[in-house]
Amino acid sequence: MIPANALTARTDHALPTRLARSAAVGSRGAGMPTARFADWLAGRADAHRFRVERIPFTGLDGWSFADGTGNLVHRSGRFFTVEGLHVAIGDGPDAEWRQPIIKQPEIGILGILAKEFDGVLHFLMQAKMEPGNRNLLQLSPTVQATRSNYTRAHRGSDVKYIDHFIRPGRGRVLADVLQSEHGSWFFRKSNRNMIVETTEDVSLDEDFCWLTLGQLGELLRLDNVVNMDARTVLACAPVAHDEPGALHSDTELLSWFTAERSRHDVRAERVPLAGLPDWVRGESTIEHVHGRYFRVVAVAVEAGNREVPSWTQPLFEPVDLGVTAFAVRSFGGVPHLLAHARVEGGFLDTVELGPTVQYTPRNHAHLTGAARPPFLDAVLGAAPERIRYEAVHSEEGGRFLNAESRCLFVETDAATTPDEPPPGYRWVTPGQLNSLVRHGHYVNVQARTLLAVLAAGAVRL
Amino acid sequence: MIPANALTARTDHALPTRLARSAAVGSRGAGMPTARFADWLAGRADAHRFRVERIPFTGLDGWSFADGTGNLVHRSGRFFTVEGLHVAIGDGPDAEWRQPIIKQPEIGILGILAKEFDGVLHFLMQAKMEPGNRNLLQLSPTVQATRSNYTRAHRGSDVKYIDHFIRPGRGRVLADVLQSEHGSWFFRKSNRNMIVETTEDVSLDEDFCWLTLGQLGELLRLDNVVNMDARTVLACAPVAHDEPGALHSDTELLSWFTAERSRHDVRAERVPLAGLPDWVRGESTIEHVHGRYFRVVAVAVEAGNREVPSWTQPLFEPVDLGVTAFAVRSFGGVPHLLAHARVEGGFLDTVELGPTVQYTPRNHAHLTGAARPPFLDAVLGAAPERIRYEAVHSEEGGRFLNAESRCLFVETDAATTPDEPPPGYRWVTPGQLNSLVRHGHYVNVQARTLLAVLAAGAVRL
Repeated sequence: MIPANALTARTDHALPTRLARSAAVGSRGAGMPTARFADWLAGRADAHRFRVERIPFTGLDGWSFADGTGNLVHRSGRFFTVEGLHVAIGDGPDAEWRQPIIKQPEIGILGILAKEFDGVLHFLMQAKMEPGNRNLLQLSPTVQATRSNYTRAHRGSDVKYIDHFIRPGRGRVLADVLQSEHGSWFFRKSNRNMIVETTEDVSLDEDFCWLTLGQLGELLRLDNVVNMDARTVLACAPVAHDEPGALHSDTELLSWFTAERSRHDVRAERVPLAGLPDWVRGESTIEHVHGRYFRVVAVAVEAGNREVPSWTQPLFEPVDLGVTAFAVRSFGGVPHLLAHARVEGGFLDTVELGPTVQYTPRNHAHLTGAARPPFLDAVLGAAPERIRYEAVHSEEGGRFLNAESRCLFVETDAATTPDEPPPGYRWVTPGQLNSLVRHGHYVNVQARTLLAVLAAGAVRL
Repeated sequence: MIPANALTARTDHALPTRLARSAAVGSRGAGMPTARFADWLAGRADAHRFRVERIPFTGLDGWSFADGTGNLVHRSGRFFTVEGLHVAIGDGPDAEWRQPIIKQPEIGILGILAKEFDGVLHFLMQAKMEPGNRNLLQLSPTVQATRSNYTRAHRGSDVKYIDHFIRPGRGRVLADVLQSEHGSWFFRKSNRNMIVETTEDVSLDEDFCWLTLGQLGELLRLDNVVNMDARTVLACAPVAHDEPGALHSDTELLSWFTAERSRHDVRAERVPLAGLPDWVRGESTIEHVHGRYFRVVAVAVEAGNREVPSWTQPLFEPVDLGVTAFAVRSFGGVPHLLAHARVEGGFLDTVELGPTVQYTPRNHAHLTGAARPPFLDAVLGAAPERIRYEAVHSEEGGRFLNAESRCLFVETDAATTPDEPPPGYRWVTPGQLNSLVRHGHYVNVQARTLLAVLAAGAVRL
């Protein structure tokens, strides 16, 4: 017989307050002062030998282009493959295209361990090398592991701290949700985003440090310090947003999203990588004939502190810096963000909510007038005093090379971003996005970076 | 400038109370007393000519087996196709199989119009003929339309009341979510489940009637009256459940679900219908060699009040009556249901929550001991006084022939359903399931039937 007092409340109302307290503590946490972080990170870089160099595809070890399909595959059948994707979305000039895509069916874990020190939640972050990051070493979640990693397909060392995330009941789960990765580069890839709180003693490995949410907010104001995996997990933290109301109720927002998902007829099918029209395979790259979008390249990596000390692998390299930005307007005193229901060919389910602007401007440089992507010029031309937040962040350095985006919150007005936005766009509050991100496949990874910036208090709208 | 008082509350806290008021009004609504309903439905049946007869595949008009694949397709390329599916789920004896599957990519609308009469919400229900229903005529949503229906692919009459659902802003949306259909019979099919409230005058077509939620609850106690489409929409009504707590917090529940979704490696690929091992195509059926699961059959239909007066089509016909049941136990005074994270080959995303038991017993009659499906015998052998609810309901009569299930809530105890259930099962409250059903791909269609029974007050646990 289980008594009533053995039941738990469905919602933990104290957690948002605890997260807010952690976000309010900047500059000085139990681990180290933020001012000392740069030295610590440089020290970690010095402690290991990291080298990444571009190689021709023939220099790949264990990877080859499969007979017939031309897909780029590993001989173990694991890790990931580079294949072709054919996307068709109804009618219109850009209604159909073919492109290379990364297929990686297994679900990874991106997990951040949390623990209170002096009554303040701290998060265990890792200085992790990823070959695609320009500065190689960035701050990653406690655990960032594909299933191959922690089931030893790499035949390398164990993944540190993984036990906190794969042994149910060991800690207290604060967030745990399957989130999509880049829908333009991955075919239906999702990762498990987890925040788990422990009260156990945790021995601190030398590549790890405890930081408050506020300290992470300080680091998120810097370029290329907090990696994508850390950002997407932080976005899932159930922080509180003080919002007396919104332009649209949650039910209206869900209804609009359902309509957006229903009205797009997206057919995405994997096709052979060989023979993709407009894509040319050379010795060291597969690239678009007009130099747009991205290249498939190969690298050789040496690293002292990764699961295996050296390896080769393919990476996707975008042709230029991206721009991802939320337009911000206040309605009735409550900040709203202009969300975009985006179709990306690799999404599991048609559309997800992205930022107002998510483009690589160079891909669209040849377009003029009405053919220009909506709101792009409003963001690119924003006066400096209207830019509330700006930093350059890297995408997943394990799959993408020099994939960087300027991430912005830009104050706009009715002239550039009207009260009634065009179809596919809707004003939502940060709190509404935060509610949606408890569930998968609502908010894309670019929007989640900007949500993390808000959650950590790197900007207060 | 939008003033603060133009904002809306994110949550409509009055709605659950209004739904509860409607659920409390049984026997006598503004439309008709429940006691007169059977006569009204019989009258609607008499007013039209309905006839369904089995025909050989060669009798199908416009449908044929495609060269090469053997897929059963319509010459218009629309409606749906019957293809093959190959499912592989990790290791184990039942880890791989092939079966026919229905592919129908377009998203339909299942919509119920709501309106207050004398301060009580009523729902506009339709007496609708579907060829696969044993009694042909059942109570359906106001609108039950594929996109082909309302974009005139049938070249038939307009879909009545559709405007309330496809013109944004015309009414007030109470629920709007994309929900999966049968994952064992459909490949990644979802429909838009909508409840829209209007304050306009609504002219009442003779095949339609207004009923309270309480009246719908009374009709849900009868066999084969409220059709599947009506049930899944009613399940999405945001009713209130008076629950001071739960065995697991919502975050713990989501975390368990995320783990379940992550641990299953499901690969489902469409394959040609021709040459499926263990499936035999005859003149009038495609059936399993051991007579299990279902048959693909063909029917000719005559109907006076459908969009087109006569047609032929394929249907899936299960071999026997199914059983779908939730085990119910009270923990700390709060009723809990034992949910099952089910893999179904046609799901978009690996698993959804189903009832404790969801089987066609005849498919498993050859199994004994530990090979028997979990909890099936506990439900089949339940003492009559422990059966809190039981009725036979039909699945979608537009695609399935004589597809009926005994739907039950069965009180169980720790001996048959332990406090700590086996992997893949978890105790959840009705309120928790109701929160999840606001979002798609969490709760399967069989569990939604049982949720509708609760929402309409057909049983009070």
